[in-house]
Amino acid sequence: MARSKKSEWIEVFAPATVANCGPAFDTIGFSLDTLGDCLEARLVDKPGVHIAEITGTKGLSTDPTKNTAGIAAQETLKLAKSLSQGVEIRLHKQIPQGSGLGSSAASAVAGAYAVNILLGEPLSQEELLEPCLAAECAVSGYFADNVAPALLGGFVLIQNLKPLRLVRLPVPDKLIVTAVTPDYVLLTREARAVLPEKILLKQAVRQWANIGALVAALHQNDLKLLGEAMEDFIIEPVRAPLIPGFDRMKQAALAAGALGCAISGAGPTAFAITDDLTKAEKIAQRMQAGFAQVSLKSQAHIGRVSTQGARCLRGKNR
Amino acid sequence: MARSKKSEWIEVFAPATVANCGPAFDTIGFSLDTLGDCLEARLVDKPGVHIAEITGTKGLSTDPTKNTAGIAAQETLKLAKSLSQGVEIRLHKQIPQGSGLGSSAASAVAGAYAVNILLGEPLSQEELLEPCLAAECAVSGYFADNVAPALLGGFVLIQNLKPLRLVRLPVPDKLIVTAVTPDYVLLTREARAVLPEKILLKQAVRQWANIGALVAALHQNDLKLLGEAMEDFIIEPVRAPLIPGFDRMKQAALAAGALGCAISGAGPTAFAITDDLTKAEKIAQRMQAGFAQVSLKSQAHIGRVSTQGARCLRGKNR
Repeated sequence: MARSKKSEWIEVFAPATVANCGPAFDTIGFSLDTLGDCLEARLVDKPGVHIAEITGTKGLSTDPTKNTAGIAAQETLKLAKSLSQGVEIRLHKQIPQGSGLGSSAASAVAGAYAVNILLGEPLSQEELLEPCLAAECAVSGYFADNVAPALLGGFVLIQNLKPLRLVRLPVPDKLIVTAVTPDYVLLTREARAVLPEKILLKQAVRQWANIGALVAALHQNDLKLLGEAMEDFIIEPVRAPLIPGFDRMKQAALAAGALGCAISGAGPTAFAITDDLTKAEKIAQRMQAGFAQVSLKSQAHIGRVSTQGARCLRGKNR
Repeated sequence: MARSKKSEWIEVFAPATVANCGPAFDTIGFSLDTLGDCLEARLVDKPGVHIAEITGTKGLSTDPTKNTAGIAAQETLKLAKSLSQGVEIRLHKQIPQGSGLGSSAASAVAGAYAVNILLGEPLSQEELLEPCLAAECAVSGYFADNVAPALLGGFVLIQNLKPLRLVRLPVPDKLIVTAVTPDYVLLTREARAVLPEKILLKQAVRQWANIGALVAALHQNDLKLLGEAMEDFIIEPVRAPLIPGFDRMKQAALAAGALGCAISGAGPTAFAITDDLTKAEKIAQRMQAGFAQVSLKSQAHIGRVSTQGARCLRGKNR
């Protein structure tokens, strides 16, 4: 009888991400440092991907073809030409689903990253993007501004989607992000439905001026400019009305000293930036109070931008 | 009898500029280092602006209200609260008019810059932008991506027009620009008439991804990325057909090793970028040969990007 191939459990972490950063719809995303999904994995005898357990959420099936962790794990086995291998997974969700914080992307990245480690890292970080994108595509749509920063860390610009071309952008020293997630269900398809098919060239020019300024601000370590450049002339005006209390919450954030405030991903999470931890706490309170005015509970997360992305917490690659 | 206020002549230079840099329509411009307009000026007794001479072109009136040098000079006197002063000007045009190389902007900048020196520099560089913009607006339209780099030098991003907010961007070390101007009249109003009022959001996203990449490339000193990011999905497809031979000329530039090639301003000048002077000469030849195929003579200019902008060649401030 063959010796069992069961390996030790390893554990990986993949961060939450903010996509559609300010004006940079479908273009720039960044990763948070402390909020993210954890995933344990080990090699087992039985080929394929097996999800033993999902904690932290009730909405996900353990069918590996029906969640991004499972799909990305399977796609990674395939890309690494290791379909005869078996992987068992325990997924620990910490990012609320449908929050606009890249929950599905983080699970995808965690699945792909863990499998690659178990296989002895046959794939590079850049190669791992492909299985992550395939998983994201299966549940959300083909976009990369969550999976790329979740995997690579920092700010990432998606210059081109097919073929994928990324540009990594620097993270300003003092940047602190306050993300506030109201207890409100905003369906991605609803957030997509309000997008205009066409936009005025005049507005597009204002938008791309701000995107240029935003990228300059990251390189020039200029948080004041970053905040100004976060103004979105095209997407926020049509999506903000889908988030109860957004406008007053944003005003409250700015009044509390936030340098900029915008929708995270497709929402309903909003995020604000500042350069000071004490201010960040005050901003979080005011943002939560803003949502409370429309009777919404919310969760606040204050943190820096992770420059690391996915990482191993326990096991081989630590 | 009052003593004559005639001063010594001073002479200033204001560079030609490339606006609408690649995808950055109305947003990013840069200045060339050796091509530009020269302007001599001195204080005289008779209040107001007097244009004694214009050389290098036949199309400009010496009526100071009818060319940008005169208008900008007058607006500078006004802004500096010096309307009782008299200024005499000799303008030496070196930038062909209507070429897409910021000819009117260079004359405006030269006029404003010279008057400010004659007055003892009461106005800052940033303050001088206002009279330049007023002059540009009177003849071309209210945009700043020629006057700002002509005055300040380097790459300049127009983050906002009213109120004017600029972001200065770094110039990559090895960047060499080849600008080729065909002997062909392309009216700005014709180039404006083909612009779409609305564009697809999908295309706008591709465009702003490239603008973000272009700004990143400048900061990261990455000329390959700069060349890739110069692709324009929105304006070039509608304007290139107005320039005879543009597509073949561009292909020839790229085949000769250009890292990118695009329309300068509203055209008909095309510019290409490279990191090597020998290649730049070959690129210039091929671009000129491209225009020759449609029986157009052309002028080539090879140079670096000026980081200085307007400067004094002779006189007080040298």
